[in-house]
Amino acid sequence: MLTVNAYGATSATDPLAPLTIERRDVGPRDVLIAIRYAGICHSDIHTVREEWGPITFPQVVGHEIVGEVTEVGSEVTAHAVGDRVGVGCMVNSCGECEQCLLGEEQDCLEGNIQTYASVDRDGTITQGGYSTHVVVDERFVLKVPEAIPYEAAAPLLCAGITTYSPLARWGAGPGKKVAVVGMGGLGHMAVKIAVAMGADVTVLSRTASKKDDALAFGASRHISTGEEGALKELRGSFDLVINSVSAPLDMDAYLATLRPHGALVNVGAPPQPLPISVFSLIVGGKSFAGSNIGGIRETQEMLDFCAEHGIAPETELIGADRINEAYERVLASDVRYRFVIDTATL
Amino acid sequence: MLTVNAYGATSATDPLAPLTIERRDVGPRDVLIAIRYAGICHSDIHTVREEWGPITFPQVVGHEIVGEVTEVGSEVTAHAVGDRVGVGCMVNSCGECEQCLLGEEQDCLEGNIQTYASVDRDGTITQGGYSTHVVVDERFVLKVPEAIPYEAAAPLLCAGITTYSPLARWGAGPGKKVAVVGMGGLGHMAVKIAVAMGADVTVLSRTASKKDDALAFGASRHISTGEEGALKELRGSFDLVINSVSAPLDMDAYLATLRPHGALVNVGAPPQPLPISVFSLIVGGKSFAGSNIGGIRETQEMLDFCAEHGIAPETELIGADRINEAYERVLASDVRYRFVIDTATL
Repeated sequence: MLTVNAYGATSATDPLAPLTIERRDVGPRDVLIAIRYAGICHSDIHTVREEWGPITFPQVVGHEIVGEVTEVGSEVTAHAVGDRVGVGCMVNSCGECEQCLLGEEQDCLEGNIQTYASVDRDGTITQGGYSTHVVVDERFVLKVPEAIPYEAAAPLLCAGITTYSPLARWGAGPGKKVAVVGMGGLGHMAVKIAVAMGADVTVLSRTASKKDDALAFGASRHISTGEEGALKELRGSFDLVINSVSAPLDMDAYLATLRPHGALVNVGAPPQPLPISVFSLIVGGKSFAGSNIGGIRETQEMLDFCAEHGIAPETELIGADRINEAYERVLASDVRYRFVIDTATL
Repeated sequence: MLTVNAYGATSATDPLAPLTIERRDVGPRDVLIAIRYAGICHSDIHTVREEWGPITFPQVVGHEIVGEVTEVGSEVTAHAVGDRVGVGCMVNSCGECEQCLLGEEQDCLEGNIQTYASVDRDGTITQGGYSTHVVVDERFVLKVPEAIPYEAAAPLLCAGITTYSPLARWGAGPGKKVAVVGMGGLGHMAVKIAVAMGADVTVLSRTASKKDDALAFGASRHISTGEEGALKELRGSFDLVINSVSAPLDMDAYLATLRPHGALVNVGAPPQPLPISVFSLIVGGKSFAGSNIGGIRETQEMLDFCAEHGIAPETELIGADRINEAYERVLASDVRYRFVIDTATL
């Protein structure tokens, strides 16, 4: 067992604080990673505040992890000491069900083991990336290409794959018109990736405050949806709409912006059920879909794609002592566009 | 102008009654069809009762039409006198927009001209198939293969294509598990077509009253959804669910019956918005979609498919004097499975 420094929650209401956690001994198929950077995802906040259900404390969160391999188990073949690697939202799955065999471990029929707040195979609760080290099965360790700036790589492990996967699945590319609703941590990656795929990208955002950024990221236009009639003018415009907003929106109004056979894909998850008029789907044969991260193979594909196209998240680097402040700023949408923790400060 | 016998509505509240209507002269690209059989679709009832908005009376409905060509215009090349032909829900479209060029005339960006209650190019209101003759642009006339029994062919023009199109688009076939929700006019065709495509088909119906029919149509099983816990036992079962029910259902419960990346496609159109939990879509990357008839090319493909596989709707043949009674029976779901009018009785 390895005792390591971390920063975590001791209750749903107290601020996060420094603490130590145990990491298991490196098993035959495990990789020990010295974490260098960890991204802050909105899911981290939902989890530690028990907004998604009760958890066991103390709990360390963080599922956007990059660092170096410092030890490998005797049977490890995919990674070597010194490799720059990453870990995302999952650290294990059954490996045997049809979904795992398809490389869609996020849909493991036995339920995968998430990077934090999940019951691990040894019965312990998984602890996330706001710490100095982590031990992970080699199959869930990604290779982070050198071309991606080190501190910018971490958010790709969640925000990157969450947006890459639906863009790839629904065919974003040359000749396709893609809209991205909301431009936060996920949305800004959706814009960059869709642009790199060759699509014509429109950002739909409530105000014009991020318009300059949207255009700088390669979007061809930015529409302020808070303006009267803005959506109506976009009727029948898009092949694909990626909705990164977790608040309830008028989905019928957004479905109307799709071309025939288009799809509106939610990566944001509003807690309330959303009313959908079936006529919005039947007329034009449209789809309202959801998407949840992606498999390990596709996550590696996304990392390689970002390296090849020279794209990476926009980040604000912070020390551990600013994590609680960062949480408040995430909730206030006051970050451009992702906080990353320098784990040397732990 | 040709004055022809028909059976139609003179108000939203009076019963349908015999009347005469005018058909335009046969233009250079027109086909005159002596109608032999016309199916009764639930849409006919919604329309004449103004449940879908106000219409102009008198109105003759019916968009499941088969008959023989008795005259062709000078430029007609696709059809000849004596051909057995059909007409479905559309009688014209712009022919020039990207959707028409794709063969998806149902999604014509200029708005297609529907077979009844639609403003035609000459400014008149289109009149449907409960009549002895109709004049239609040759591009919207389908060839009805001899292998399809004459009186059974009519419902294919709406119920057939409405179910064939989503089954084809979403990949029903060998190795795929398909559920059909509701087994009425549309649902029973969905079962027959999905079975013919090679899929493993389950019928989900409130009661067991149609179980024997479902199995006779080739379904491998029938589940009575009115029984406690029936849907829960089907979690993660289907690649595709075709929902033919126009009443509101608990869509989250049906989405839960999908396998990862599965799709629930509505061909039934409940008037109320349906609440959808976005988590039902995100977990497993699922889709909730709609589908609306199909293009002319695909409608012909469907007719040829049904001929090749020896499938046809189950019909109950009636004379015109029983149309009003048939309407009441459609509303009571008391038909197995589609009424067809013998137009010789007009």
